[in-house]
Amino acid sequence: MTGTTEFSLIQKYFSYDFKRDDVALGIGDDCALLNPPSGKQLVMTVDTLVAGVHFPVATSAEDIGYKSLAVNLSDLAAMGAEPAWATLAITLPENDPEWLEKFSKSFQQTLHAHDVQLIGGDTTQGPLTITVQLTGFVDQGRAMRRDAAKPGDKIYLTGNLGDAALALKLLDVPDLPAPETRTVIIKKLNRPMPRVEFAQRVAEHCACAIDLSDGLIADLGHILKASHCGARVYFDRLPVSPEFRECMVHLDGFDFNRMILSGGDDYELCMVTSEKNESALFSLAESMDLLLTCIGEIDSSEALTVISSNGESMELTATGYQHFSHV
Amino acid sequence: MTGTTEFSLIQKYFSYDFKRDDVALGIGDDCALLNPPSGKQLVMTVDTLVAGVHFPVATSAEDIGYKSLAVNLSDLAAMGAEPAWATLAITLPENDPEWLEKFSKSFQQTLHAHDVQLIGGDTTQGPLTITVQLTGFVDQGRAMRRDAAKPGDKIYLTGNLGDAALALKLLDVPDLPAPETRTVIIKKLNRPMPRVEFAQRVAEHCACAIDLSDGLIADLGHILKASHCGARVYFDRLPVSPEFRECMVHLDGFDFNRMILSGGDDYELCMVTSEKNESALFSLAESMDLLLTCIGEIDSSEALTVISSNGESMELTATGYQHFSHV
Repeated sequence: MTGTTEFSLIQKYFSYDFKRDDVALGIGDDCALLNPPSGKQLVMTVDTLVAGVHFPVATSAEDIGYKSLAVNLSDLAAMGAEPAWATLAITLPENDPEWLEKFSKSFQQTLHAHDVQLIGGDTTQGPLTITVQLTGFVDQGRAMRRDAAKPGDKIYLTGNLGDAALALKLLDVPDLPAPETRTVIIKKLNRPMPRVEFAQRVAEHCACAIDLSDGLIADLGHILKASHCGARVYFDRLPVSPEFRECMVHLDGFDFNRMILSGGDDYELCMVTSEKNESALFSLAESMDLLLTCIGEIDSSEALTVISSNGESMELTATGYQHFSHV
Repeated sequence: MTGTTEFSLIQKYFSYDFKRDDVALGIGDDCALLNPPSGKQLVMTVDTLVAGVHFPVATSAEDIGYKSLAVNLSDLAAMGAEPAWATLAITLPENDPEWLEKFSKSFQQTLHAHDVQLIGGDTTQGPLTITVQLTGFVDQGRAMRRDAAKPGDKIYLTGNLGDAALALKLLDVPDLPAPETRTVIIKKLNRPMPRVEFAQRVAEHCACAIDLSDGLIADLGHILKASHCGARVYFDRLPVSPEFRECMVHLDGFDFNRMILSGGDDYELCMVTSEKNESALFSLAESMDLLLTCIGEIDSSEALTVISSNGESMELTATGYQHFSHV
């Protein structure tokens, strides 16, 4: 954490009041000093958002501030972890006080909503890029992992699929669909809801999970690869929002199936666990007013098969969003 | 830690063999799982290097791989911490296997030299930017800090000043000075030596330190501000290398004084401690074959004064390298 002016920018815009008891020294020295809780494992993740790649260049500073943290919170949720400490490395084209003010306020609100303290940062000059690292805690050996799926287990999803991918397309057609529908869908892209609280509680009943950042097919594929098994997913069961359904009825020229199966950026939680835990999962989801759907099951094949409404297997071509091949 | 192709890039180029015992799960899931040592504090830092800002665009992949880790190691050294875990967020203009291969190998060698394990990463597409976060350990309450200087304490420096700043200038004049001198000086820019081992051992005798990334005046200024005191530094005592001195004699048109006082990127350690610890410091430095110099003392003024050879105070204008004001 170096640099004179950068230091001032961090001090000026990112010195938030909120202090956690386990932070002995926050922003302002060469490093932060932290007291990890005894008996817990640390859970760490890092994600970078690049303007024009991970969000449209026109995205508001507030939405970028929110989302740069949300995608990392979602990674912690995928392990069932409790978030605690964040660092922020932000590269900016210029010192733009108005932009920084808005970004910082939104970032702060998002930190605060999850009791996370910003403990370090670096601001540098260059094309807009935001890297957030997040550290959290999980009880020893209780993290949900990608490699814990077993044949016979069921596959569950929070929320709906495809809204974020549809939103990206809608940005190109300003007048469609009706304004209220449009607002709801675009919010799903800019303000995804990481399932942090639900994940910490569901981890009691579930050893295997991933968050959906690259799309269902790609992310479920990561679980299957790590767990050395296959899966059957029933297309008709895949949950979509009323707004998404409205667009399916009224808009032409969109590949809605691809959005559902392979659209990225939904940040819902995909869990794999034994059917005997199903009622516990649904009770928990209901108590948190969260949609939960069983979409299929793990099998001992080596393939991921999606079954269409007529009982046939669908061909999977798009396997998720890939930066270096699609951009 | 998301993304399908990015995941593959991390898997392909950054799956190193080296495993630490305290890493329960490394690269390959949504997060890493870590077992922190009991009774220690965690020490965390993050730094971003942007091509064309923090290193010349022509810098080799190997040098970037080394330096992106070295600047963070230097921040841990400033606290006297033992490095342990790293994450790497790298933004690349394109998937360039040759560049990645070279970067990765150099990064790996540098990790290995300090027993650090890479536990997470994210690769994204965009202008070349490298963000490294490093976590280490320090005995409870034993970290060296910026706010622990006291009037009467002496100020000590490892190594020499100004070589990195001189190297940046020499890149514009390909034929000067003699090749062997040039090589030595440019190596100080591209391969700075973070004082990691020395710092861990010197922390026993010293409560206050900073690493010199922005230049002596700016970085010592951070200590003075945090500790609410002033300092007197004697210009004639400031250590420069034989190669730097050779350039002072033979090259015209360079502001050598500015390089010594305010040149950044040297990554030497600046320590403040009571004179009663001086012999312990010099013994330790000697045992590690490291140059150590006492350059001045802390006083109860509010100013940093540099005393020239004729006993007068020098005027300080350049206060260090500032990204948003100088670039």
